[in-house]
Amino acid sequence: MKKLIKTQYYLALLLMAVASLSLAADQDPLPSWNDGPAKQSIISFVEQVSDPNSKSFVKPEERIATFDNDGTLWAEQPLYVQLAFAMDRVKELAPAHPEWKIQQPFKSVLENDYKTLAASGHEGLLELMMATHAGMTTAEFEEIVKEWLKTAKHPRFNTPYTELVYQPMLELLSYLRANGFKTYIVSGGGIEFMRPWTEQVYGIPPEQIVGSSIKTKFEMRDGKPVLVRLPEVDFIDDKEGKPVGINSHIGRRPIAAFGNSDGDLQMLQWAQAGEGPSFMLLVHHTDAKREWAYDRESHIGRLDKALDQAQKQGWTVVDMKKDWKTIFPGDK
Amino acid sequence: MKKLIKTQYYLALLLMAVASLSLAADQDPLPSWNDGPAKQSIISFVEQVSDPNSKSFVKPEERIATFDNDGTLWAEQPLYVQLAFAMDRVKELAPAHPEWKIQQPFKSVLENDYKTLAASGHEGLLELMMATHAGMTTAEFEEIVKEWLKTAKHPRFNTPYTELVYQPMLELLSYLRANGFKTYIVSGGGIEFMRPWTEQVYGIPPEQIVGSSIKTKFEMRDGKPVLVRLPEVDFIDDKEGKPVGINSHIGRRPIAAFGNSDGDLQMLQWAQAGEGPSFMLLVHHTDAKREWAYDRESHIGRLDKALDQAQKQGWTVVDMKKDWKTIFPGDK
Repeated sequence: MKKLIKTQYYLALLLMAVASLSLAADQDPLPSWNDGPAKQSIISFVEQVSDPNSKSFVKPEERIATFDNDGTLWAEQPLYVQLAFAMDRVKELAPAHPEWKIQQPFKSVLENDYKTLAASGHEGLLELMMATHAGMTTAEFEEIVKEWLKTAKHPRFNTPYTELVYQPMLELLSYLRANGFKTYIVSGGGIEFMRPWTEQVYGIPPEQIVGSSIKTKFEMRDGKPVLVRLPEVDFIDDKEGKPVGINSHIGRRPIAAFGNSDGDLQMLQWAQAGEGPSFMLLVHHTDAKREWAYDRESHIGRLDKALDQAQKQGWTVVDMKKDWKTIFPGDK
Repeated sequence: MKKLIKTQYYLALLLMAVASLSLAADQDPLPSWNDGPAKQSIISFVEQVSDPNSKSFVKPEERIATFDNDGTLWAEQPLYVQLAFAMDRVKELAPAHPEWKIQQPFKSVLENDYKTLAASGHEGLLELMMATHAGMTTAEFEEIVKEWLKTAKHPRFNTPYTELVYQPMLELLSYLRANGFKTYIVSGGGIEFMRPWTEQVYGIPPEQIVGSSIKTKFEMRDGKPVLVRLPEVDFIDDKEGKPVGINSHIGRRPIAAFGNSDGDLQMLQWAQAGEGPSFMLLVHHTDAKREWAYDRESHIGRLDKALDQAQKQGWTVVDMKKDWKTIFPGDK
């Protein structure tokens, strides 16, 4: 009798599993995407590479998908989130740095003078980053990022930054993972700025984040080992740096790559140059009402050369306004 | 009728699955390990962290285990495998480099004069590495490594190097993975020297390899993107470098770390300093007959400070002679 009950129990489990499988097959995996060529190209690629009977089948361990972050997975306007973080940090740390009141680029940050800040250029930005991102241990920095994200609000939408992620891209990430893909972020942003929250927000764990970095140094402090963040650039994960970062961290070529700007061009070229099937997609910001519209002339997330390449190579270009039913999760 | 057959088929599958599960539970997961404190400490740790009812339970995504390679997973005597590779490459490339006949350290390699080679020190070795590991694309280097491993033989055992991996460690890797661990290599060896074969030999995929590296550069060649290996050190993944490499590539602290030399000391300290449970193990080479016996005085794989620390901290020390029934898979 006991045995029979057990068998019935297993059978019930099995039936439930089968039922949920067929249910899943009927459901639209990308409900926030309008029907159209962009959505169709994604589904068609995923079905081909995951069908063992297809000529384009790719073994699960080789199904690597890389995503840019700023402008591809979350909003990057009116300025990169990490830059907003750096500016808030300057204000937070200012009492201990009276010299910043007269010293650029800090002065412009304290006075919310974005024009002068922008004029400080690459050098100024670098100085800002080093003053706010170095000098503490990796564990301390992680806490600082987490605490900031709890209270910081986006200037236009007045919501936490982590709510300004793109709902259609969240669905795409899940859809790829459900089909055996390993999803990675490959971003120009700081690797240690992303890791504290990407697992919760995107379902992407720390070991699948590739980003820009500063050097760290192992030290014993009071008998405990720590890693100290040094004010020295280690690696810039942008443009030609993206394939370098992918090779260093993943050691496999992605078969699918997703970006939104010229900073992603080389990553998409690198994915396309593989021997098997590949899929390249650019998010084109065309929706000034629900998000922003910008491309060839934008200082942030400029999409110019990569857009030309996309047209030439037949890469998928998402027209945000037309292709996305929903932009942010809160819009639903 | 058809439906019934299908149900019976599923039921049979299910019973087979259940049967193999109970079979697995009865089997010794580490058959090449003699019973003793080392084996017991491993099993006890793994059972604790993977038991949801244990106070020491660790969520699967945080079960990160890092392994040194040379001397921990495969033999490193009489000289590092990668150095044997570099020396063979010098001989292979010599016809195109007549100047090497009179130029050190190449001259000593061509004359099998190990004493003079050793005397060339760190500088000489670096020159040797750059001459043999740089100047080609990453794809070309991968092929060179694969081809070399097919024919190269170990001077003492006269077998391919990839057969001189430690059977007890292969079992340990499988046992950890079967219990939800993600296994990583964190080696002073070259990351691109290991990736071509670690998946097949250890079941560890390229994205879970951390190692030393030289810089690479993205280039378009005949319209195709390539990564070119430059003769410039990028990162040395040894000693204080190991926690740095772990943080950069994994972004989580390992809860278990396995090494065999002073080069692994900081990695083990880093694992131990985590907030939750942790496990640290050193392989002590004590078996001159079946492998080699060396520790405090050895030039390769010196185990001195780390052995002191192990005794002080109560880390597990494997006595190869006593604890391992089998050394290499071929010995069985």
